[in-house]
Amino acid sequence: MNALPDLAAEALNAAAHAARAAAVPLAAAPRAQKDQALLAAARAIRARAGEILAANTADLMAAEGLSAAFQDRLTLTPARIEAMARGVEEVAALDDPTGRVLAEWTRPNGLVFRRVAQPIGVIGMVFESRPNVLADAGALCLKSGNAVILRGGRESVRSVTAIHAAMLEGLAEASLPEACIQVAPNADRAFVAAMLKAAGLIDLIIPRGGKGLVQRVQEESRVPVLAHAEGLCHTYIHAAADHAMARSILANAKMRRTGVCGSTETLLIDAEVAPALLPLLVADLAALGCAFHADGRARALVDLPAASEADFHTEWLGPVLNIAVVDGVDSALAHIRRFGTEHTEAIVTEDAAAAAVFLNGLASAVGMWNASTQFCDGGEFGFGAEIGIATGRLHARGPVGLEQLCTYRYQVIGTGQIRP
Amino acid sequence: MNALPDLAAEALNAAAHAARAAAVPLAAAPRAQKDQALLAAARAIRARAGEILAANTADLMAAEGLSAAFQDRLTLTPARIEAMARGVEEVAALDDPTGRVLAEWTRPNGLVFRRVAQPIGVIGMVFESRPNVLADAGALCLKSGNAVILRGGRESVRSVTAIHAAMLEGLAEASLPEACIQVAPNADRAFVAAMLKAAGLIDLIIPRGGKGLVQRVQEESRVPVLAHAEGLCHTYIHAAADHAMARSILANAKMRRTGVCGSTETLLIDAEVAPALLPLLVADLAALGCAFHADGRARALVDLPAASEADFHTEWLGPVLNIAVVDGVDSALAHIRRFGTEHTEAIVTEDAAAAAVFLNGLASAVGMWNASTQFCDGGEFGFGAEIGIATGRLHARGPVGLEQLCTYRYQVIGTGQIRP
Repeated sequence: MNALPDLAAEALNAAAHAARAAAVPLAAAPRAQKDQALLAAARAIRARAGEILAANTADLMAAEGLSAAFQDRLTLTPARIEAMARGVEEVAALDDPTGRVLAEWTRPNGLVFRRVAQPIGVIGMVFESRPNVLADAGALCLKSGNAVILRGGRESVRSVTAIHAAMLEGLAEASLPEACIQVAPNADRAFVAAMLKAAGLIDLIIPRGGKGLVQRVQEESRVPVLAHAEGLCHTYIHAAADHAMARSILANAKMRRTGVCGSTETLLIDAEVAPALLPLLVADLAALGCAFHADGRARALVDLPAASEADFHTEWLGPVLNIAVVDGVDSALAHIRRFGTEHTEAIVTEDAAAAAVFLNGLASAVGMWNASTQFCDGGEFGFGAEIGIATGRLHARGPVGLEQLCTYRYQVIGTGQIRP
Repeated sequence: MNALPDLAAEALNAAAHAARAAAVPLAAAPRAQKDQALLAAARAIRARAGEILAANTADLMAAEGLSAAFQDRLTLTPARIEAMARGVEEVAALDDPTGRVLAEWTRPNGLVFRRVAQPIGVIGMVFESRPNVLADAGALCLKSGNAVILRGGRESVRSVTAIHAAMLEGLAEASLPEACIQVAPNADRAFVAAMLKAAGLIDLIIPRGGKGLVQRVQEESRVPVLAHAEGLCHTYIHAAADHAMARSILANAKMRRTGVCGSTETLLIDAEVAPALLPLLVADLAALGCAFHADGRARALVDLPAASEADFHTEWLGPVLNIAVVDGVDSALAHIRRFGTEHTEAIVTEDAAAAAVFLNGLASAVGMWNASTQFCDGGEFGFGAEIGIATGRLHARGPVGLEQLCTYRYQVIGTGQIRP
C-alpha cells in the first residue's frame, strides 16, 4: 500500500463529511433560496465564459492525440456555455420536488400518516470528460436538496474547475454552504475508489459515461448505484401495424440520433407482415445510411448480411440495425427477454389488445406503443431535465429527474396514541 | 478453493434461473390465481400441522444447548401454526399491489405517460432460525408477484422444509410454478455467499435477523440489499408537552415491548420541563422495571447512573433507557443526527410549530408527533403485513409491505409520434 490511496481516502472523507454537514441546511432551504443560487450561478457562468473557454482550451491542448469523439465531448464553445447557463436556469424554473406529500391516510385509531418527499442526502457523481455535466448535475442535485461530490475525467480538470467556480459564486450569493457542490480535489483514480467505499457517508453513486466506467463502478461500489448500463432497445412491428406509421417510427427510432441510449438496435417484425413491409423498411433505412444484420427468416425476404447471436446482444450506438422475424407478441416478448436490457421497447400496431399484451408483458423500464424509442428522455417525459437514465429495477427506472433524486419519509401525527 | 462453494454456486444458479423463469408467468398472474395459491397454502399449513410440529420437534432436539431465546424463536406450537396460516390468509385479502397506475400525464405532443407498479422480479431472503418467516415472506412475495429464494438458519431446516411443502401445495393448486417459492437446497453458508454474488439473477436481497447477519449481508452483497440495520429510536419531550401524555407515551414507547426495533432507546427532554417532569417519568419506568443511563444535566435532577457516549450509541433492545437533557428542538435534532440511526423518532408537544420544525428537520424514515415510536410497524401503518423495516434511504423506507415489494415501469401511448 503506498501513500496515494490514503491521501485520496482522506480527501474524500473530508469532502464527504463537509457534504453531510452542508446537506442539513440545504435540505431545509426554501425553494427561493435554491433558485437564487441557481440563477446567480447561471449569471456567473455567462460572466466567466472567457475564463471557462480559456480553461477548456488548455484542457484540449493537453488532450491532443485523443480520439476526435473524445475531444468533441470535451470541447466547450460560446454556444455550449450559453446552453449550460440556460440549462441551470431551466432547473431553477422547475417545481421543488421536496416536501411534496406523496400519500396521506388516517388509521382507525386516528393516527394520520403522511409520506413526504425529501432529498436523498449526499450524491457522488462519477463522470467522464464532458465538463457540462458539472453544471447540469450540480443544478439538479442542488434543486433536489442533495449535496453532491463530482469527480470528472482527468482530461477535463481545468474546465470543470472553471465551471465549478461559477457554481460556487451562485451558492455564496444565496448564502448556501460551498460544500453543497464539491469537485474532487484531484483526478486520481484512488479518489473514485474512495467514493465507492464510502457507504454511510455517500448515499448514492451515479456514474455517467461509457460502459466500462459504469461496470467498474457497479462492480466495486459498496454504496448503492443508480446506473445506466445498456440500452439495447427493440422496435416491434406487429402484424396489425399501420405501414406508413411503422416506416416513420422505425426510421426515427433507429436514425434520428444513433449514439443515444434510446435508439433502436433491433427490429422485430411479424412474419405475417414482413414480406410486404420489410423491403420498404430496409430501403428507407439504407437510404439514411444504415447497415443491417438479419436472421435467416428476414434474409429469405430481403438480401441482407447474416446476424450472429452476438449481434442481437450488441448495443451498436451507430447506424446498424439487427433484424429478426417473429410470430406475434409472445414471440417478440421472448426475444426481448433473451436479448434486451430492460431499457425501452416499442410496439407499432393498430390492435389495442396486442399493444396491452406487449406493454404488460415487458419487464423493461419503458414500453412505448406507436411512438419512437427515442422519446426515452427526461425532457420528453416532461421532467424538465435529467441526470441520467436508470436501467436497474430499484428506486428509480428510466429518466432520472428531480423527483427521482428524492426519497421519502413518513410523518405520523397523533393525539397521544399508545400502542396496545 | 474446495468443491463445496462450487456446488453451492451451482445450486444457487439453478435455483435463480428457475426463479427468473417462474417470475414471468407470476408477474402476469391475475389476483385471483395468486389468492387461490395463498388460500390453498393456508389450508395445507393447517392440514400438515402434525408434520410441521414433528419436524420442528426434531429441529428443537438438535438445537439443544442453544440459548433459550434462540430456542423460543425456533419453536412452533399449534397456536403459532394457526397464526401462520391466518397470516397467509390475511395477505390473500390484501389488494394486489401490481398494475396500479401510480401516475399518468399527457405531453403537448399527445404522448400519454403512465407509471405502473410491477413486481421487482426475484427476491433473495436470508433469515435466521424463525421458521414462520418462510410462510410470511413467501406469501408477501407471491402476492406482490415476485419469485423468492429463501435461505433460513441451518437449525430450522426441517421445520422450514415442512412449511415449504404446504406452500408448494398452494402453488400447485393454483397452477403456478413451484419455483415461485424456493428454499435453499442446503444450509451451507456458501449458498448465502452465492446468493449475495448473484447480481443480474437476484434483484434484491432482504436479510432478516440479528445485526451480525445484516452487516455481513450488507458488506458482502453485490446485489442491492433492503436492510433493517439498527433502530435506535428517540422520544423527545418538548417544553410544551402535555405531561400526562408524555408519561403515557414514553412508558409505551420504551416498555410495551423492549425487544422490537421501534422501541425507544433514548429520552430527550427539554431543560425547561425536566425539573418537573423527569422525576415522574423515571418513577413510571422504574416501576415497570426499567434501568437508566443519564447525562450530567439529568443526574443533577434525579439520582441516576451516568451515561457514557457509547450508551447513547447503543440499541438496548431491553428495559434500559438513555436520558439526555436538551435545549429545544434544534438541540434535540442535533442529538438525533449524532446518535440516531434514521429509524423512528417522536416528539411530544402541544406546540404545532415546534412539531413541524422537528418533523421537517428529521432525516429519519419515520417521525411521530404525539404518538409512541412503537407504532413503527407495517400493520399499524395499515400495510396489512410487512416483510421487514428498511433503514436505508433508497427505494423503500420504514415498514416494507406489498407496495414496497414493487417497482414501476412506464407505459407510453402514442399515435405515431416521432422525435424531432
